[in-house]
Amino acid sequence: MAELSAESGVPVATVKYYLREGLLPPGERTSPNQARYSAAHVQRLRLIKALTEVGGMSLASVGAVLEAIDGDKTPHRTMGVVQEELAGTPPQVSEEAAQWAWELLDGIVRRNGWGELKRKHVGVVNLVAALATAKELGHEKLAERLEEYAHLALRVAELDVDTVTGLTSFDKIIEAGLVVTVLGDRIFAGLRHLGQELLSREVLGDVPD
Amino acid sequence: MAELSAESGVPVATVKYYLREGLLPPGERTSPNQARYSAAHVQRLRLIKALTEVGGMSLASVGAVLEAIDGDKTPHRTMGVVQEELAGTPPQVSEEAAQWAWELLDGIVRRNGWGELKRKHVGVVNLVAALATAKELGHEKLAERLEEYAHLALRVAELDVDTVTGLTSFDKIIEAGLVVTVLGDRIFAGLRHLGQELLSREVLGDVPD
Repeated sequence: MAELSAESGVPVATVKYYLREGLLPPGERTSPNQARYSAAHVQRLRLIKALTEVGGMSLASVGAVLEAIDGDKTPHRTMGVVQEELAGTPPQVSEEAAQWAWELLDGIVRRNGWGELKRKHVGVVNLVAALATAKELGHEKLAERLEEYAHLALRVAELDVDTVTGLTSFDKIIEAGLVVTVLGDRIFAGLRHLGQELLSREVLGDVPD
Repeated sequence: MAELSAESGVPVATVKYYLREGLLPPGERTSPNQARYSAAHVQRLRLIKALTEVGGMSLASVGAVLEAIDGDKTPHRTMGVVQEELAGTPPQVSEEAAQWAWELLDGIVRRNGWGELKRKHVGVVNLVAALATAKELGHEKLAERLEEYAHLALRVAELDVDTVTGLTSFDKIIEAGLVVTVLGDRIFAGLRHLGQELLSREVLGDVPD
């Protein structure tokens, strides 16, 4: 147990809590007060740490995601669960703003032949809510170039899918899909912020630090 | 007060709490138990709602961001505060993984002539920590195409800066910078997830719903 904690960087009390909550499978009992843990336990602990600390996910969401990973869903459906847990509860928005956002998004998807948008899909619901929130704030101008953002997002998604499907082991593919989605969002947001800083310094002007 | 709550969609008890915490400036007192609130109060409430519900920010972070907006910082520096509050506390990673991530990132920035990366900048610290976490999970392959991600992120940042600086009112610019950063990350992540779903369905195969 002490070794497991040291290897994974997760405190012993937290490891015990994860065991009780079923987030971590029990070790192989070798004596009444000793158990043997494997490399898979260390990896699982690191994954929980990444999802909570970098991904900002709640333990309930982490539990749902791990259950999906351990189950027999297709990679595509497993990723659906991940996206659902990441999306959280959408904010309340007015009917009018939601309708505006829906039409905007649906128009882009149709014009580009990206298939059919499912109105009740959790990702779509959250995207519509975020756009509607911008409108309610009087910042609908920010959505004017949504189509350009969508094209760039599709290219990012292409890189994601290329990277993950390029892996050879099936287990790795599912876990990598999870990592690329959760950590990938954070990493991309970080790169975007660096870019904003670089460009806004040029455009808006500032005394260099 | 009842009107303010109805207009903004924020419950009366929450409005009172924000007043007590100083997140919302007091209204103009018209009698011992009545106050007049302006359109600016409604807008401020909507902004707090967007930052917490869509941006997932804590009230402490929202307070810091509003203080920066109300202050006399340049837009560039105000955005620095926003990014700092959004970034949160970086996860603990090993020295070795952090060094690997730093070299990777620094190499990309140098090769592309994007200036000098500040090692202690909160955005850089978080980006390094997220990349190092991927490595610790044994998924450093996911960072192989980091340079391509960085180029796409810079194009997204270009759209951000173009949109915000295209606004005419100075107040709008600062608020829009906040909205584009906080809501923009969520919107882009949502578009990316839709793209992943569209492409992974094609590549990995699945029965259509």
